[in-house]
Amino acid sequence: MTAAADVVVVGAGLAGLVAARDLTAAGRSALVLEARDRVGGRIVNEDIGDGKIVEMGGQWAGPTQDRILAVAAALGIATFPTYDTGRKVLHFNGRRGTYTGTIPRISPLVLADVGQAQAWLEALARKIPTDAPWTAQRAERLDSQTFETWIRHHTASRSARMLLTLGAEAVFAAEPGDLSMLHVLFYSRSGGSFQRLIDTTGGAQQDRFAGGSALIAQRLAAQLGDIVRLGAAVSRIEVAGDKVTATTVAGRFDCRQIIVTAPPQLAGRIDYEPALPHWREQLTQRTPMGSVIKSQVIYDEPFWRPDGLAGQATGDGDGSRVVFDNSPQDGSPGILLAFLEGDEARRLGREPLEVRRRTVIDSLVRYFGPRAARPERYLERDWQQEKWSGGCYGTLFGPNVWTRYGHALRQPVGPIHWAGTETASQWTGYMDGAVRSGERAAAAVLARLPS
Amino acid sequence: MTAAADVVVVGAGLAGLVAARDLTAAGRSALVLEARDRVGGRIVNEDIGDGKIVEMGGQWAGPTQDRILAVAAALGIATFPTYDTGRKVLHFNGRRGTYTGTIPRISPLVLADVGQAQAWLEALARKIPTDAPWTAQRAERLDSQTFETWIRHHTASRSARMLLTLGAEAVFAAEPGDLSMLHVLFYSRSGGSFQRLIDTTGGAQQDRFAGGSALIAQRLAAQLGDIVRLGAAVSRIEVAGDKVTATTVAGRFDCRQIIVTAPPQLAGRIDYEPALPHWREQLTQRTPMGSVIKSQVIYDEPFWRPDGLAGQATGDGDGSRVVFDNSPQDGSPGILLAFLEGDEARRLGREPLEVRRRTVIDSLVRYFGPRAARPERYLERDWQQEKWSGGCYGTLFGPNVWTRYGHALRQPVGPIHWAGTETASQWTGYMDGAVRSGERAAAAVLARLPS
Repeated sequence: MTAAADVVVVGAGLAGLVAARDLTAAGRSALVLEARDRVGGRIVNEDIGDGKIVEMGGQWAGPTQDRILAVAAALGIATFPTYDTGRKVLHFNGRRGTYTGTIPRISPLVLADVGQAQAWLEALARKIPTDAPWTAQRAERLDSQTFETWIRHHTASRSARMLLTLGAEAVFAAEPGDLSMLHVLFYSRSGGSFQRLIDTTGGAQQDRFAGGSALIAQRLAAQLGDIVRLGAAVSRIEVAGDKVTATTVAGRFDCRQIIVTAPPQLAGRIDYEPALPHWREQLTQRTPMGSVIKSQVIYDEPFWRPDGLAGQATGDGDGSRVVFDNSPQDGSPGILLAFLEGDEARRLGREPLEVRRRTVIDSLVRYFGPRAARPERYLERDWQQEKWSGGCYGTLFGPNVWTRYGHALRQPVGPIHWAGTETASQWTGYMDGAVRSGERAAAAVLARLPS
Repeated sequence: MTAAADVVVVGAGLAGLVAARDLTAAGRSALVLEARDRVGGRIVNEDIGDGKIVEMGGQWAGPTQDRILAVAAALGIATFPTYDTGRKVLHFNGRRGTYTGTIPRISPLVLADVGQAQAWLEALARKIPTDAPWTAQRAERLDSQTFETWIRHHTASRSARMLLTLGAEAVFAAEPGDLSMLHVLFYSRSGGSFQRLIDTTGGAQQDRFAGGSALIAQRLAAQLGDIVRLGAAVSRIEVAGDKVTATTVAGRFDCRQIIVTAPPQLAGRIDYEPALPHWREQLTQRTPMGSVIKSQVIYDEPFWRPDGLAGQATGDGDGSRVVFDNSPQDGSPGILLAFLEGDEARRLGREPLEVRRRTVIDSLVRYFGPRAARPERYLERDWQQEKWSGGCYGTLFGPNVWTRYGHALRQPVGPIHWAGTETASQWTGYMDGAVRSGERAAAAVLARLPS
């Protein structure tokens, strides 16, 4: 057979680029077919002038995210700490308060309530085998209920429920009722603990990449050269004997093995011949993407810093419920990153830009005072409307999906391999998980290719 | 513009065929594009010789299913009652018992337990507005939990939970943990009540169609003639100005309005240009199909009838948990219809045919005695593996889908209309709902077409 390459990789996000890097380093030929006109997938920089950028997609790294940090370091991309100095803001039950550390200043009864529930969650999470969460003790029971149900059973107060809801929204871009309890435990364990997922210093939001996270993808792609083809969405994958053929608008490409890095839902939209086995097919039907709009509100300077505020805020009102200081490393201009997640993204995503902009800025005024009302610019990206992502941050597992279909998430179907951060057992959903998944898939393919 | 037709209809199941019937009756031109090489979608006859058939897909009708009954009557297709004479079998907790009516002979405590839960469910269902279930009282609370969670809260005994689980499996081809409680209530109300969904006489399984349900689709298609195109899967729908273009392997077809009848999950796999709004897009990501294998076990005669048995059975063991007498109207040959639903379909669908066949027949022996071990033939259809259905009986709504995305289920997107049984507010999931959805969509399109 005459193959275009030993291996075709579908998708030029981190998973696909890293897989191609490992394949070519091992002396194999690879071709990366990317639907978009850019690389990076769910990570993307936006130019804001003066040689500066903001990140409109995934951006942070933190402790134990060794693989993404290693990839960045090898590419000469430095990290710097997320701004985390000063007091944080909580606007809750109509009142604004500030606090240091991770413990907000609210009623000790509520703190005890939420603390007890979280401790219980963390204890459960520690027992989840992240390679096969469906084998966990009581997996079926945990998977048959939503996180919302679990929260209701393990908290006494409405305020504690709301705080856990805010945590779920921040981590999953979804509501607790969207999620299987088993998934919440698996996902927490995959990153270490739920606390690590929500922490800045010491957690998943600790560090940023100089030049922006998308630089990692851009440099990986530059090293790969013309084996990365943009505007080449794969619409069909055909397996016939030893040959795999990927069809795109830019032509058909033959190979021996193929790695699909799109999230399961989008991978399910490719036309497979022969059809995939039903356990894989029905998995892809049960793996929707999260709901998030990422807004960057740009001010002449980070005016909150002189007030002793870290630029981090959370609250239970309309608009953004999770805010970070996302200014460039030199602190100019001042940028507040305001997420709309879960229901707020769904609701405000249906409104005109001007309504959404005003609602986001109103929430920033609640957190940071009247100066927040006068930004220089408002940028946003609605990931719900990104055709080649389907949503962000990642795939949501509702009840009964892990226990019934989890086994099909990574398992290859003949010469078809699955990668992407959803398939990672460590730091799934994060850039680090994407890198790990690309490395794993490349190793699996290399082990299968005839020498 | 030069259009191939005023309206393109995607899918030649009941919804699409009925829509095309109404459109052409109103003097409009229509074109029905069907992916398969046959019409009928989720209904299909299989020839068993001697001029007889068995139905491998949807087959029953019942009281209040007025639209499917009217369509069949207009086509000269008669109904006859499902065989429902004699005692029914329940094999439960390792013991076999028989009973008449709808109340099995089990512990009165368990009966009271399950009866109380069901009464509560029926009372809740009566309050659901089936046109807009997300507006129901306490909709968010009901939608944030699984049916499994609700069952656990409203039953005291393991046996009652198992009986409700058997009911859910039979109605949805899914497990209670797969389903939002709000969906269970909506679905029940859409057919009248949960009881009506599970009843034979007086319920959704009351009547059968002479010649098989697929005859309805075949005769509708015959009346439509060559406007029905087989082997024409629509891969892309493009809207540009007044013109809609549907792309298939058999060519591109222009029209003014288009009706997509595929279930939401499969409709979501079409490539739309421009992209659909995110609320519709994310809805299609959250609407997986059920899991069912339909087996027909054929005997020389219905040997259970002389024993005073109705040929209906249910139980909590391996293999089939829902069985009906599905013999032809004249009682020859004897046919037991054995469903594998939910977890049993998922599990046994991964086994070789011989293991599945033996497991199904072993379960029939438990219900009907040793003569069940010697069938003449075993037929089956695994709907999980049907590419153009994605599963059966229909779409499952997990938690938080109705309340967040339900509004997008029927709402047209410009000239793109949605039909199919999933979009019906009466008898959703059933053939009757499919007919209603086709009639509704055709009326909506007719109201929009320029005169």
